[in-house]
Amino acid sequence: MQEDTICAIGSPPGQGAIAIVRVSGPKTLNAVSQICFLQKSGKQLADIAPGRMIRVWIKDKESILDDGMVCRYVAPHSYTGEDMVEIFCHGSVYIQQRLLQLLIASGVRLARPGEFTQRAFLNGKMDLSQAEAVADLIASSSGASHRLAMYQMRGGFSSEIAALRQEMLHFVSLLELELDFSEEDVEFADRSQLTELLERLTKKIDTMARSFASGQAIKNGIPVVIAGLPNVGKSTLLNTLLNEDRAIVSEIPGTTRDTIEDTLHIEGYLFRIIDTAGLRHSKDEIEAIGIRKTREKLRTARIILLVIDLTEATSEIPQEIKALHLEKEQQMILVANKADKVQEEYLQQKVAELEQLKAGTVIPISAKKQNNLDLLRKELVSKAQSLAGEQDVMVTNLRHFEALDKARQALERAKTGLKEDIPTDLVAQDIREAMHYLAEITGEITTDEILGNIFKNFCIGK
Amino acid sequence: MQEDTICAIGSPPGQGAIAIVRVSGPKTLNAVSQICFLQKSGKQLADIAPGRMIRVWIKDKESILDDGMVCRYVAPHSYTGEDMVEIFCHGSVYIQQRLLQLLIASGVRLARPGEFTQRAFLNGKMDLSQAEAVADLIASSSGASHRLAMYQMRGGFSSEIAALRQEMLHFVSLLELELDFSEEDVEFADRSQLTELLERLTKKIDTMARSFASGQAIKNGIPVVIAGLPNVGKSTLLNTLLNEDRAIVSEIPGTTRDTIEDTLHIEGYLFRIIDTAGLRHSKDEIEAIGIRKTREKLRTARIILLVIDLTEATSEIPQEIKALHLEKEQQMILVANKADKVQEEYLQQKVAELEQLKAGTVIPISAKKQNNLDLLRKELVSKAQSLAGEQDVMVTNLRHFEALDKARQALERAKTGLKEDIPTDLVAQDIREAMHYLAEITGEITTDEILGNIFKNFCIGK
Repeated sequence: MQEDTICAIGSPPGQGAIAIVRVSGPKTLNAVSQICFLQKSGKQLADIAPGRMIRVWIKDKESILDDGMVCRYVAPHSYTGEDMVEIFCHGSVYIQQRLLQLLIASGVRLARPGEFTQRAFLNGKMDLSQAEAVADLIASSSGASHRLAMYQMRGGFSSEIAALRQEMLHFVSLLELELDFSEEDVEFADRSQLTELLERLTKKIDTMARSFASGQAIKNGIPVVIAGLPNVGKSTLLNTLLNEDRAIVSEIPGTTRDTIEDTLHIEGYLFRIIDTAGLRHSKDEIEAIGIRKTREKLRTARIILLVIDLTEATSEIPQEIKALHLEKEQQMILVANKADKVQEEYLQQKVAELEQLKAGTVIPISAKKQNNLDLLRKELVSKAQSLAGEQDVMVTNLRHFEALDKARQALERAKTGLKEDIPTDLVAQDIREAMHYLAEITGEITTDEILGNIFKNFCIGK
Repeated sequence: MQEDTICAIGSPPGQGAIAIVRVSGPKTLNAVSQICFLQKSGKQLADIAPGRMIRVWIKDKESILDDGMVCRYVAPHSYTGEDMVEIFCHGSVYIQQRLLQLLIASGVRLARPGEFTQRAFLNGKMDLSQAEAVADLIASSSGASHRLAMYQMRGGFSSEIAALRQEMLHFVSLLELELDFSEEDVEFADRSQLTELLERLTKKIDTMARSFASGQAIKNGIPVVIAGLPNVGKSTLLNTLLNEDRAIVSEIPGTTRDTIEDTLHIEGYLFRIIDTAGLRHSKDEIEAIGIRKTREKLRTARIILLVIDLTEATSEIPQEIKALHLEKEQQMILVANKADKVQEEYLQQKVAELEQLKAGTVIPISAKKQNNLDLLRKELVSKAQSLAGEQDVMVTNLRHFEALDKARQALERAKTGLKEDIPTDLVAQDIREAMHYLAEITGEITTDEILGNIFKNFCIGK
């Protein structure tokens, strides 16, 4: 239990109808009782049942600061697990600031970012990965990232980790039992079964760690790079998808030099759409820099929209695709643009040709006339779904990824040790180490430094 | 009572730890019960006592949108006087938006700006001037404007208006009693006493209406114009007061051309500090436009800081002051700048000379060295206090000002009528008209148009 009492504005910053000021810690009731006075009856705040909304005058010395509401919670039945009060006041910036000043004058201090949630963790109201999910939940701006955060906040990820640790514990117990009887040279654990179990655990952890790239993409927006030769309509496509004039469009090849980035929500997924300079050899120095940037952006893409001009010859497309050097996890959509400018029969033939390349789904559109854009959006969503659907649990947090990776390495060492018949106690030590890293994720094992790093990225008031 | 049910985000817009969504109207419980489900016990939301905070799962069809809290209020014991629910959710933008969408899908519609307060007014929870004060309270950014809004919200202004109406009612009753007995030529009301009463009422209303200018200044910031010859250090003074490099400063006279405006809080008062181009005849066309603007700004000022360069001859100061054409309600402070560059004895002598002009308080400072700025700030506060302290009640609202002005005109007509001995029923009619205008202020008499104009300026969710 923390000794000092903290306060912060819990509602979003700025002016609104109502604001919330939260107070938590042992001196909460004492401090708030000096400022908030029940409007009806002569009762004190302390006389009011916990969890009841009660109307108060918020007093600033002799004058009335506000007509507000107060709700108190008694430890351990609160968010932080401590005594808490939530004050609901009019959302003027002046009232919010003044109320904080009054609380500080009553011996309460301003909370650090995430300190309410940190206290909730320290008081056992949630584990560390759940606490981290609170920040992710608040920051999530799409249905998909919200789902991941909510799963983690409700303990889904934690129980996966707990299950893994349980299996390791069972394993290591068997090994350590052998150690107790080491002089008798007994083998309690079947070596081949042990190896099999280790294989399975390693693979599971590896899959989780691998989900980090997709998890990050879903959390921060799936990077979609629009690529293609100059003047095929890349910027027009960006503008049409965003429904605004984001990029400058002209007939002159090489108009776009800087990469232009914006976000787009489709059916609960967040995409980061990146328009790039057309890929060609250019003597224009600035354009050449742009093309270098395009290549960098291409490496970070999860989805590449290769825009093709249907009114031009498409014989060089296979070469163009090869030049993109796609990675295994990158997905491509061939966007056959300017479909409005060619005959239907010709279009069909071209699409068939492009499909034969088997480089990705082919979608004929007209970015200018906004034809068939729904089909393209659907394809983006389907690619996003395949990204999200790769596995049950998805790692979205760098700290978790690193801990999983370290756990995996420790298990690999244990596997090698088992194969090379090194002493049982050394193998057991490796497994204990893997368990240690998993415990770091949920916070059974933690340090002030880890906590400091986690909670400094929270918003104030949470 | 309104038939439809409304919802809106009550907390400030954007992302934060906690957000509030408010629902009000007859279908509130029904709609919220489709979305929010009690976490503990199998109880329904309807089973929970009003005013109790209760933890719920907020459901988005089959999945969990959020882990939140809910508090319900039963008509007429709520802010609007209707059935209400307040939902407290995590402050992610996604959750807030999705929650509104879910409520809309359950038959609730988005509230218009100020609609909650409008309903509170329509259901008799507050009068119209109190409702208007709610918006002022939320918008108030200084202690002084907050005090005015709070006085009005708590009904202080309304009871002043009610007292005036009561006096008029008494007056008009006497007149109308006479009318009933008109054939008998009885005078129930002493004419000279009536005239005296009318005088008093007119004067009172006039004082209230006159307070509008000061009220506006306190509400929106007291306009302080920094004036003076070129190169006396006006922009340096602005920068020093604001504690930032707001205006470009140089040794070249005529550096400032545009008027530069910024706000400054001192001891609960909000000042709008306006730096102007130095007043001189200039051949530079842009500077000349700047000087014209300076003259315009001078007319709107409540306080004028006339900056004087102590290192220059001050013989032309009286002429300069005269050229400012000060209005009666404008207050002046003579800021004797560059005090660091002159000898103490010389300074004393200059200050004495300036004081003899009796144009305003003389304050020797060095804007550059930041000497004596506290004295200047104190003087600004003292001028602001004299503005605020002119009378008990202060009108801050244009609508109230116009109604008071019309009431005053009607009373003036009644006074003239009384003097010229015109028929009693016509005098009574004028008084009735004055009462009508006062009733408009508190909303006893109102129209949809008046209401529409008032509430459209509210924030959503209030």
